[in-house]
Amino acid sequence: MVDAMNISVDAMGGDNAPAAIVNGCLLALERRGGFNLQLIGDQAAIRQSLDAYGYAGDRIGVINATQSIGGDEVPTKAIKEKKDSPVALGLGLLKDKKTDAFLSCGNTGALLTGAMLITGRIKGVDRPALAPMVPTMRGVSMLIDAGLNTTCKPINYEQFAQIGSIYMRAMFGIDEPKVGLLNVGTEENKGTAIVKEAYGRLMALDGINFIGNIEGRDLTDGKCDIAVCDGFVGNLILKCYESIGSFVFGGIMDIFKKNLKNKLAAAVLKGDIKALFKRFDYEEYGGTPILGVGGSVFKIHGNANAKTVMYAIDRAVAFTNSSALDEIRECFGRKDSAPA
Amino acid sequence: MVDAMNISVDAMGGDNAPAAIVNGCLLALERRGGFNLQLIGDQAAIRQSLDAYGYAGDRIGVINATQSIGGDEVPTKAIKEKKDSPVALGLGLLKDKKTDAFLSCGNTGALLTGAMLITGRIKGVDRPALAPMVPTMRGVSMLIDAGLNTTCKPINYEQFAQIGSIYMRAMFGIDEPKVGLLNVGTEENKGTAIVKEAYGRLMALDGINFIGNIEGRDLTDGKCDIAVCDGFVGNLILKCYESIGSFVFGGIMDIFKKNLKNKLAAAVLKGDIKALFKRFDYEEYGGTPILGVGGSVFKIHGNANAKTVMYAIDRAVAFTNSSALDEIRECFGRKDSAPA
Repeated sequence: MVDAMNISVDAMGGDNAPAAIVNGCLLALERRGGFNLQLIGDQAAIRQSLDAYGYAGDRIGVINATQSIGGDEVPTKAIKEKKDSPVALGLGLLKDKKTDAFLSCGNTGALLTGAMLITGRIKGVDRPALAPMVPTMRGVSMLIDAGLNTTCKPINYEQFAQIGSIYMRAMFGIDEPKVGLLNVGTEENKGTAIVKEAYGRLMALDGINFIGNIEGRDLTDGKCDIAVCDGFVGNLILKCYESIGSFVFGGIMDIFKKNLKNKLAAAVLKGDIKALFKRFDYEEYGGTPILGVGGSVFKIHGNANAKTVMYAIDRAVAFTNSSALDEIRECFGRKDSAPA
Repeated sequence: MVDAMNISVDAMGGDNAPAAIVNGCLLALERRGGFNLQLIGDQAAIRQSLDAYGYAGDRIGVINATQSIGGDEVPTKAIKEKKDSPVALGLGLLKDKKTDAFLSCGNTGALLTGAMLITGRIKGVDRPALAPMVPTMRGVSMLIDAGLNTTCKPINYEQFAQIGSIYMRAMFGIDEPKVGLLNVGTEENKGTAIVKEAYGRLMALDGINFIGNIEGRDLTDGKCDIAVCDGFVGNLILKCYESIGSFVFGGIMDIFKKNLKNKLAAAVLKGDIKALFKRFDYEEYGGTPILGVGGSVFKIHGNANAKTVMYAIDRAVAFTNSSALDEIRECFGRKDSAPA
């Protein structure tokens, strides 16, 4: 292996492991240089998959894991008991600075819990958050938190805004990312007691471009770059978002295939419709950072295909290359806390 | 006027008042018989609008209101101070049994507050709820509460399930409507402390077909007939739902109109795409009942056009004709409470 950035990937998680993950890794390596990959999981299965794709390069290493965590396992229990699972191993390597990033398509709860317990929070960050990008009329916006924290304190909203702003600046080059607080109305006095207090804190916060409360439709309209909410709300919105997109596009695909007449007409429109689909394509947004932990940790969709894995690795490389992690440390006090 | 069901409509609320509302009323009267309408608002403006549409029948009455409540007014204050507004007058008529239903496109908060303060809750109902229908892959599902109660107690989820079940049985003929609890996972132990307690209550509740926790995507998939949640979550989901639909369909319409080639192809697909659009068409679901108050109260979209108003009136007539209100009273103890 050449001396370069090292990215570790859980080869066993998700619906299409290890083939889609191995394939995605190969696509990522083709796409850009400057990093090596480390696949963690059942060594024999990974080797078999690498052979099947005819890979003979030196940019992929394999680390054997004798255990794996299923999608239905209770996260805390699984992380504590399965120390030889890809997630526990990968997050441990990250903590020990033996890898630069870790990605997994597996059990979301286990990855989140592991990121907290093994890799540890950045000092001063009260609660890390899952921060996916969602498509909007103007591009994409970050939804933070989308499921790590079922309930939040006012300080969490404030920190999500800060961490999110650093990420959007570093990764999307947006100078003063607009932060909106998801609420049931735009007026200052809207929402629960906690959300109202969060509003006050965000208003008073320096270094953040807070545009006030935003409603559900404002998110889709792209009124802000970062939509701040608790993980209960964020998770529900994210899953509605994904499924409404599939619902509508599925309906359109059915129409396109309905009969010969439709098929011919669809052929004319295909390129344009594809471009529209692409804006809703979670393959490209498949890698979701867990922000606030002391390393680059990315969750990939459980049903990810090779392309999704490729884009996620791409994103992890960019994040690791960026100054975002250092800036978050800087923002909250420079040092990682001990794992909780 | 003939002796028939009487439906009162706020002629002044919403973005397109009074013309769209008057037009919608005329369409509703054409559509079915058995009821009369009463328009409440600026009498001169209403008369002018009726004249503009050339209405000369005897099924519409007009009640003058010297005040009106703007979209930005603080609901409680507006309802208390503007006793001669359409909302205050209409809900008062409903309370006094001088009308059978009241509909408004205006300030949602004022309508909800007015329904609580003027018309009053059904005795035993802790909190009424706003209960819109959202499109799903299998048809439509009710989302309850979608914005009346920012925070909820466990008993509220239980009552939403009961009230929602009565409505879906009476209005949609579904024998055992499936009730789902919106949550961040399907497992029993998911969610906030309140949602967990609501889960336990729903599990123990007789007469309800509770299918357990549902995620955001289950709502779109149509896994349940009634999705129960607090008003903060419900409002955000509803608005995302609406805007994601508009976003995707807007994108498709742009493609259809992009150039001559696309226009010709689109002409072939138009009928089918229109049918798909129709499933996402809030015009048909524009009338949303406020369930748990002692009368038929419907909120219509603020940007409703005449067709939306027509469908909402249609729905209010059906609801008033149904046994739903009596069944809700029966379920919770037979008598309306005094206005709070």
